[in-house]
Amino acid sequence: MKKIPLLLALAGLTAAALAASPGAARTKASQAAKASKAAQAPKPARLLSAAEVLQASPAADWRGLDPQNTLLMELASGQVLIELAPRFAPAHVANIRALARGGYWDGLAILRVQDNFVTQWGDPDGEDAAKARPLPAGAAPRLPAEFSVPLDSIGQAAGFARLPDVEGWAPRTGFAGGFAVAADPRTGKAWLAHCYGVVGAGRSDAPDSSNGAELYAVIGQAPRGLDLNITAVGRVLKGMELLSALPRGTAAMGFYDKPEQRTAIQRVRLLADVPDAERPTLQVLRTESATWARLLDARRHRGGWFVHSPGYIDVCSASVPTRPAPDAAAQAPK
Amino acid sequence: MKKIPLLLALAGLTAAALAASPGAARTKASQAAKASKAAQAPKPARLLSAAEVLQASPAADWRGLDPQNTLLMELASGQVLIELAPRFAPAHVANIRALARGGYWDGLAILRVQDNFVTQWGDPDGEDAAKARPLPAGAAPRLPAEFSVPLDSIGQAAGFARLPDVEGWAPRTGFAGGFAVAADPRTGKAWLAHCYGVVGAGRSDAPDSSNGAELYAVIGQAPRGLDLNITAVGRVLKGMELLSALPRGTAAMGFYDKPEQRTAIQRVRLLADVPDAERPTLQVLRTESATWARLLDARRHRGGWFVHSPGYIDVCSASVPTRPAPDAAAQAPK
Repeated sequence: MKKIPLLLALAGLTAAALAASPGAARTKASQAAKASKAAQAPKPARLLSAAEVLQASPAADWRGLDPQNTLLMELASGQVLIELAPRFAPAHVANIRALARGGYWDGLAILRVQDNFVTQWGDPDGEDAAKARPLPAGAAPRLPAEFSVPLDSIGQAAGFARLPDVEGWAPRTGFAGGFAVAADPRTGKAWLAHCYGVVGAGRSDAPDSSNGAELYAVIGQAPRGLDLNITAVGRVLKGMELLSALPRGTAAMGFYDKPEQRTAIQRVRLLADVPDAERPTLQVLRTESATWARLLDARRHRGGWFVHSPGYIDVCSASVPTRPAPDAAAQAPK
Repeated sequence: MKKIPLLLALAGLTAAALAASPGAARTKASQAAKASKAAQAPKPARLLSAAEVLQASPAADWRGLDPQNTLLMELASGQVLIELAPRFAPAHVANIRALARGGYWDGLAILRVQDNFVTQWGDPDGEDAAKARPLPAGAAPRLPAEFSVPLDSIGQAAGFARLPDVEGWAPRTGFAGGFAVAADPRTGKAWLAHCYGVVGAGRSDAPDSSNGAELYAVIGQAPRGLDLNITAVGRVLKGMELLSALPRGTAAMGFYDKPEQRTAIQRVRLLADVPDAERPTLQVLRTESATWARLLDARRHRGGWFVHSPGYIDVCSASVPTRPAPDAAAQAPK
């Protein structure tokens, strides 16, 4: 029997990306560019595949993790690394640091998994005043809403790499410090776009009712309707599949019916509080780098398996690559 | 301790949707409409919540399943119902019917789960000519690419409900027969948009190398870059969580390393071949109905928990509701 057709396309930008067929891609790209609002996107002299772009990336285009802004969540199934976004939610990030340092989440649980929406964790007894776990010293019980920040603070001078591609959810999108960002020059606001893997702080009806103790991660189609309605605090860098592949809850909104269906959280620490030798040594591609711009272009203009190039990308359709930090010895000057 | 904030927003349009706060929503909506390309979207005289819209929906706005165009896949964990799209992929749908009638998938397996991309199933031995399962009588080994159809065939006369909301992936989007559709009047083509839950036919490098025996379902952010590159054949109507919550494969592209990691497919039948008494009696909201238009509007202009209305929706951010068919007795004339 003939070779079974396997779907070869890749969703993310990873080093395993397919090699492109540059000749074919160039033809397709020029057709797509004519037809697309992304025509103003700069095109490289020669189209490279995502894999080629990553292979050619200089070490300076990668950065390490900031220990003060990285959470390490330990589940029985493995580790989840979350990068916090203090430029977008300074009060929530400060509170989350205090919660982690106070061991707040240790022994708590994942309470809710709603298909194509969010995985959410916190205190199963949080709604019962008599049984709820007290917040540790230094953690505030409620915080002001941090749904947006001034666009000036995230502007191009501050490293905001704007996408030329037009979308409908916001007049402007791009990347800043590794995060997908949306903005509106008319209101002067910028905010974290709710893309796959974004982590936010659950709230009840009052906009200032969140404190970061109850967190969720997006596990489906970007719920951009949440933008400007809730405080996003960061994004999952590693271990996303440990949150996205959990059984969906069958009660309303994906909550688990029974306590035994929940996933226990063993421990959550700020990376700064993890001994050096135990810290994951992940690197993140700088979204201010030429490599990132080239990767986005490799996604707009595709070759190889692809017979059609979209000539377009949206801010939630490309995830910022990570990689294991190169071996320290290999990095040493020769 | 205070009530823990729970994330109340809903991703899908379901009967469990929140009640809106119409006054607040109206104000927000008018602001958003000014700021949005969706300003031309018709607004109802009074804004209703999604739940209210669904409650008020007349029976005529719902339809049953077409037994000739519905697949029933049985896993140990439950049933997956897939609605096929013969208007978009007639040759593939005909082949899939022949494959199901020949019991092709019975005892085969889910082979690949790549996070934020696809779950894929077929013959684990498909690439080994000596061991591959033969195709049943009437099933072709390869088919012409069905990446698009003439826009005329899916035009407004044929029930294409166009969205006023502008997006970047395609010049035109909307819904037809329950499916999210994208189109380009300049090329005269229309195609199924690769949204969450869409099912497609895996192929190798040649565009005409698919036959529908190897299928995938989208389990993450809509991979719209696949549009016009592969044949989409339908969408999951029910049981999506049985495909999306599977453990991710750890080999390249999310394939499972070991045979025992795969999920066995017990049986796949065309609904027409399932005895009447065993058929699931799901109903699907007609995307040509006024109820669907009102639901989309309820998503654009939100109240209640929401303090900001996007005034916008994209074709992959709203899933067409299903419901258990009302009891036959309750439906009888009184």
